[in-house]
Amino acid sequence: MKAHVYVTLKRTVLDAQGKTVADALRRMQYSGIADVRQGKYFVLTLADTLDATQANAEVDRIAREVLTNPVIEEYSFRIEN
Amino acid sequence: MKAHVYVTLKRTVLDAQGKTVADALRRMQYSGIADVRQGKYFVLTLADTLDATQANAEVDRIAREVLTNPVIEEYSFRIEN
Repeated sequence: MKAHVYVTLKRTVLDAQGKTVADALRRMQYSGIADVRQGKYFVLTLADTLDATQANAEVDRIAREVLTNPVIEEYSFRIEN
Repeated sequence: MKAHVYVTLKRTVLDAQGKTVADALRRMQYSGIADVRQGKYFVLTLADTLDATQANAEVDRIAREVLTNPVIEEYSFRIEN
């Protein structure tokens, strides 16, 4: 089983990195991009000993307690069998 | 429309950042994690003027030409209406 965890800055936090990418794209003549937000992406390979419920709980705990800074970031995740 | 772009190191490239996260999780007694790979995650907000085919082509071009270093990285993306 693999878990895909997406960590992004909260909508209310200025994303300087994303803004820089968006500005660069505009300067490079890529059209049609209104905004860019940049985040982190983790792929966790889970041990086969976990069932679906355990995997869900463990990934949620890791994402919340370790991978995300709750002051400025939020996360979502998806588990793939 | 929003495009979600995921950029990761190729499987053959050592992911030191991911390995560090995996080691830290083990030291912190999180169980059930066999491996971690870390990548980048971009959310592109697309202009309303693009139709689905144009959006797909433009996002693929941006991901390939700008967001990814083709020597060591690979990408995938998903467009959400």
